[in-house]
Amino acid sequence: MTRIAVIPGDGIGSEVIAQARKVLDIALPDHDATEYDLGAARYHRTGEILPDSVQAELDQHDAILLGAVGDPSVPPGVLERGLLLKLRFDFDQYVNLRPSRLWPGTTGPLADVKPGEIDLVVVREGTEGLYAGAGGSLHTGSSAEIATEESLNTRYGTERVIRDAFNRASRRERKHLTCVHKANVLTYAGDLWRRTFAEVATEFPAVTTEYQHVDAAAMYLVTRPQDFDVVVTDNLFGDILTDIAAAVTGGIGLAASGCVNPDHSHPSMFEPVHGSAPDIAGRNIADPAAAILSVSLLLEQLGRGDAATAVSDAVAEELAGRTPAEPVDTTATGDRVAERVSRILG
Amino acid sequence: MTRIAVIPGDGIGSEVIAQARKVLDIALPDHDATEYDLGAARYHRTGEILPDSVQAELDQHDAILLGAVGDPSVPPGVLERGLLLKLRFDFDQYVNLRPSRLWPGTTGPLADVKPGEIDLVVVREGTEGLYAGAGGSLHTGSSAEIATEESLNTRYGTERVIRDAFNRASRRERKHLTCVHKANVLTYAGDLWRRTFAEVATEFPAVTTEYQHVDAAAMYLVTRPQDFDVVVTDNLFGDILTDIAAAVTGGIGLAASGCVNPDHSHPSMFEPVHGSAPDIAGRNIADPAAAILSVSLLLEQLGRGDAATAVSDAVAEELAGRTPAEPVDTTATGDRVAERVSRILG
Ligand SMILES: CC(C)[C@H](C(=O)O)[C@@H](O)C(=O)O
Ligand SMILES: CC(C)[C@H](C(=O)O)[C@@H](O)C(=O)O
Repeated sequence: MTRIAVIPGDGIGSEVIAQARKVLDIALPDHDATEYDLGAARYHRTGEILPDSVQAELDQHDAILLGAVGDPSVPPGVLERGLLLKLRFDFDQYVNLRPSRLWPGTTGPLADVKPGEIDLVVVREGTEGLYAGAGGSLHTGSSAEIATEESLNTRYGTERVIRDAFNRASRRERKHLTCVHKANVLTYAGDLWRRTFAEVATEFPAVTTEYQHVDAAAMYLVTRPQDFDVVVTDNLFGDILTDIAAAVTGGIGLAASGCVNPDHSHPSMFEPVHGSAPDIAGRNIADPAAAILSVSLLLEQLGRGDAATAVSDAVAEELAGRTPAEPVDTTATGDRVAERVSRILG
Repeated sequence: MTRIAVIPGDGIGSEVIAQARKVLDIALPDHDATEYDLGAARYHRTGEILPDSVQAELDQHDAILLGAVGDPSVPPGVLERGLLLKLRFDFDQYVNLRPSRLWPGTTGPLADVKPGEIDLVVVREGTEGLYAGAGGSLHTGSSAEIATEESLNTRYGTERVIRDAFNRASRRERKHLTCVHKANVLTYAGDLWRRTFAEVATEFPAVTTEYQHVDAAAMYLVTRPQDFDVVVTDNLFGDILTDIAAAVTGGIGLAASGCVNPDHSHPSMFEPVHGSAPDIAGRNIADPAAAILSVSLLLEQLGRGDAATAVSDAVAEELAGRTPAEPVDTTATGDRVAERVSRILG
């Protein structure tokens, strides 16, 4: 029995997760799901963000499915650092996997790109860099205030995520890997990334490689996203680049992600890239596609390739049948996709 | 007599600067220009990047016009840190001004945006953040290597650039200012930015304000760039966001910038956002529009508003008359724009 921990979270989180669970029920019948009440609501009610006992329970699962956490009523950083980033770091989810496709039947904002032409995946480092939480401030609130943020990067952390990205690139058709950093300014970390990239590359002669500065990569994601296959980059650059990749492929409503621990020493976590969107919460109009596609990534990670493909194919069918500009019906979408998965899996 | 220092630099730098100088000759007849040989060529010839004596001479000018520095033959960071960033920091050019317009007659990559609809300016902090050069590495080259990069932020540096941005926003039609940071992860620096932004805002009641995380801002620059008026952000985020803004407004070939010292304690520096593009150098096909528009920013900064407008109007006419997909003729473009400026200024 596969054990899945579910964290619906705040805002539209619970709405889209309800749909994702319908799909999971069909695609992975032999699973056992436990819901955990974490997020802004619990924080306000009890002051708790992620009790140790809850974290220990989560750790006993095979995977975590998360909706979205966050609410404007909670100071910035509290839930991000205390819950989302804590799980990514403590569970050593060093591969933050973010695929972007311009799905057939959908339109992106770019005039010259046709559906099917964009198919890229960003492998974002998930446990280092500026996300380490190393920083501080002095004379806070005075005119003499200074604030620092430190980016911490290790050969260990860089090498393992780069090797993972090479492995992924070598299994894809184009076998092309782009390393993104800002080596002309962040010379220490950039040099570490570039050297490690070049060294690991020798293990993968079939993969063609390229390096781009993050500003150029951001530009090319807009002007020629078709050229990207796999991208490997640091935590912060990956955060920014994956939102651009989402933007050029029809928006954040379709962007799924996996915070993957490839070594299986702790559970991996799967979540839509979008946030809790309190402005549209409770109206049954949030697109559950990203949450459902996150289920596909979860299945893939659990070694259930056929079920994963069934889910993404079902979403593709759903998207192809959409009428542009017509509002999404959250629950109806979940029902239709679940039914399609059931049909595909026979 | 206005004294202009000119650094043509590497690759296409000298080609586009030659055109910019034709325009400058017409628009600012009472100036005296001195060319400085700096960049990859000099570095290879003499080992010098920016001799102190040259820097002292540059400091005696009213403004600096720079083409592009850099060449793949020089290790990353050497010219960037030793020349470009050194001038920005030592000359206290704390306002890195980067306007983006979708010029009438041009087309950007976005399907739903018409020329004239995008008109934004990014005020990028130019003397702090991750560009401070504070970092290091230990056990370099071994499997135990760590590399750090530190973002240094002061209330002093944050407040002055934010106030400058509010001033600019208050002089524009929409009077809207968006502050961009990543306060949910970079909590110390982000908090400094947000607090300072809120405090300075009280001095500018006519300006409407907004805060966005950098990942969201990157996305919105692609999905609804029309909504932005003035953006104020830190050094690294500004680097990335301005390349996205350039991408959605027809590309880096049109993006001008000013590294401005608003206090006039040292000269400001004006440069196209593009690099030295060694791949197309020497073929007279580089677009000089960004360099010429940088001249317009230079004139504006020198208090020559009429001449500045004449130059940007002349570029607008040139762009409106272009046949898409026809290659640019660098020298012919410079001649035509200079002639137009001459006609406009009577
Ligand atoms: C909510 C935030 C901490 C998070 C991040 O920056 O990683 C989000 O933007 C994401 O991309 O998952
Ligand atoms: C060349 C590089 C140091 C520079 C920067 O990062 O500021 C460039 O990208 C720019 O935007 O002017």
